Amino acid sequence: MSAWVLPDHIADVLPSEARHIEELRRQLLDTARSYGYELVMPPLIEHLESLLSGTGEALDLQTFKLVDQLSGRSMGLRADTTPQVARIDAHLLNRQGVARLCYCGPVLHARPDGPNATREPLQFGAEIYGHAGREADLEALELALATLRAADVRDALVDLADVRVVRALLAGAQAPRDILERVHAALAAKDASTLAELTRGFPAPVRDALRVLPELYGDRQVLDEAERVLAAFPDALSAVSGLRWLSAQLAELGTTRVSFDLADLQGYAYYSGARFAIYADGANDSLARGGRYDEVGAVFGRNRPAVGFSLDVRSLVAVVPRPPLRAAIRAPWSDTDAGLRSAIAALRAGGETVVCVLPGHESEIDEFHCDRTLNCVGGRWEVQAI
Amino acid sequence: MSAWVLPDHIADVLPSEARHIEELRRQLLDTARSYGYELVMPPLIEHLESLLSGTGEALDLQTFKLVDQLSGRSMGLRADTTPQVARIDAHLLNRQGVARLCYCGPVLHARPDGPNATREPLQFGAEIYGHAGREADLEALELALATLRAADVRDALVDLADVRVVRALLAGAQAPRDILERVHAALAAKDASTLAELTRGFPAPVRDALRVLPELYGDRQVLDEAERVLAAFPDALSAVSGLRWLSAQLAELGTTRVSFDLADLQGYAYYSGARFAIYADGANDSLARGGRYDEVGAVFGRNRPAVGFSLDVRSLVAVVPRPPLRAAIRAPWSDTDAGLRSAIAALRAGGETVVCVLPGHESEIDEFHCDRTLNCVGGRWEVQAI
Repeated sequence: MSAWVLPDHIADVLPSEARHIEELRRQLLDTARSYGYELVMPPLIEHLESLLSGTGEALDLQTFKLVDQLSGRSMGLRADTTPQVARIDAHLLNRQGVARLCYCGPVLHARPDGPNATREPLQFGAEIYGHAGREADLEALELALATLRAADVRDALVDLADVRVVRALLAGAQAPRDILERVHAALAAKDASTLAELTRGFPAPVRDALRVLPELYGDRQVLDEAERVLAAFPDALSAVSGLRWLSAQLAELGTTRVSFDLADLQGYAYYSGARFAIYADGANDSLARGGRYDEVGAVFGRNRPAVGFSLDVRSLVAVVPRPPLRAAIRAPWSDTDAGLRSAIAALRAGGETVVCVLPGHESEIDEFHCDRTLNCVGGRWEVQAI
Repeated sequence: MSAWVLPDHIADVLPSEARHIEELRRQLLDTARSYGYELVMPPLIEHLESLLSGTGEALDLQTFKLVDQLSGRSMGLRADTTPQVARIDAHLLNRQGVARLCYCGPVLHARPDGPNATREPLQFGAEIYGHAGREADLEALELALATLRAADVRDALVDLADVRVVRALLAGAQAPRDILERVHAALAAKDASTLAELTRGFPAPVRDALRVLPELYGDRQVLDEAERVLAAFPDALSAVSGLRWLSAQLAELGTTRVSFDLADLQGYAYYSGARFAIYADGANDSLARGGRYDEVGAVFGRNRPAVGFSLDVRSLVAVVPRPPLRAAIRAPWSDTDAGLRSAIAALRAGGETVVCVLPGHESEIDEFHCDRTLNCVGGRWEVQAI
């Protein structure tokens, strides 16, 4: 096999796409910063225990393992940054009040998420710790929408859910853990017949509510229906009322394309409250996912309220319009002309790209699109259109 | 062991340092761009053969190994980006003319480079392919100095060498490979007695020149001395004359702190011509290293001329002055006041950081230093000093 063949689901990013990714990356980080989110950079490798503690089996299977020859211990390549940021909040910052943190860096997946997925997403995300109220949920959602707007995503669709709805129902079922897992799977697959089978022995109000749940998706009318169906479950009602408030706030912020899916359990091992996914026209998968995950820092000894979101900058770049190429200036090469050198230095300091044509390469097409050239006119160096 | 203890030589980067690293990263990439260098993003993991082919044992020992469960093949975590960029030049771009490429991303080292070295440097670098002439050497050196200036490094010291000097001498020795390796080691250690021992059987002109070589370091006078000592070795003389030209060009560009070390062989398995290291006052290790490595792409089937440099952004950030913190604006939180929301949005769009104080957290010190606050004055929201 040739030395230049890359592993499956691993790819180089070539210049025009790389430039776009870099520009997006800056816009995302600058947007998070404008909301007061501080940048952190957790390491790519950590001891397996700290990388995987409390994160569930799915993340374990996605994590590349390697051996630390300095210690002989097992390490993992991070497959998700959120647990690392929770560790930083819990141990390094150790603040009593609110901490707002953001990050942007590669993660690696031992298995791809889908047939066309990269195994090296560039994960950008933001988290807010220390506030249990719904205001933090709203801020995370608002920031996610603001970052997507900065990336030029138009007409975002927000899908809202809350894992506490299912949790409140199942709390009344008192079923063994493996049955609950299968109920989760049937709900996720909206598999009505399996659900009916599994819940046959559940108390009637729980059974009836669980059977209706997979149909509770769609626009705001879903919430009215949910309040009727879930009337016997105060914790579920409170979650539904939280979703109603969130969607009203989104409308105030100009986002009216909101849908609900009360049976949604994606990432349920992680989330502990309201959850959101943001879609855009023309993209099959969600562009960003987030929500509340209050338990994520527990393994690090500080069970702080937490809410946040993340997205893959590489997936995002594929669905947003590419910004126009900034054109460059061609300049001749000289090792003796001080005037030329200072003209080039001044243009570069002013933000221009100046490509010096090395001797012998005058007839090559530049890698950068050059629409101007630096010419000597009457002893002065001037930029002229090509 | 606690779940939050990191492996040795691995660390989190906390907010104030992370922000500085991010700012530096942008300055370095923007400087490279202003010279016409296109950004590429090679993957973090590759098949071992392509990552290590032709790069020598040192890189092999520094490379973390892992197994690809999709293919069962061995992969490596990149410990150096240069061979990857050579692969991209050779196979993906496949240009006949000049290609200028730059990159910035993490690399991982199985063993740290020194007692205080991180095993996760953030490597920034730039490479120019397709031009064998010394103009490309000068451009790489000029760009390295420009990026360090952008990072606020003052009074850089440039150390120049050329592996062709030693190579030209040893070509006349016709000694077995293991002896040549030991001669290299003795030269690197400036170990005169071992050198005398090893070269006893060499032809007299080679032996005499090799024995003087370790003393040929220092300022420009070294070059005069070298031309006398190396008179019998035309290839060595040509390398010395190249160094003389480079240092004269550097003087034109305002860099007069130049030294030479003609016995220097750092990274000799890699370099094939002129080599440079840039130091700054107050830093023990070099801040940037580079030079010509024409053979680096050979394993990918295209032996293109190549010259470039790289540096570790994390080491750099430790030795340059920290830019002043940009202060933020504190704002109250409201879910009903549209005027407040639009005032906050306008400030953020204008580049300000606005931190909303969530309900119940009014007495906390913000993570961002806030020197202003958003107050309602006569029905209008105004920014006021705290």
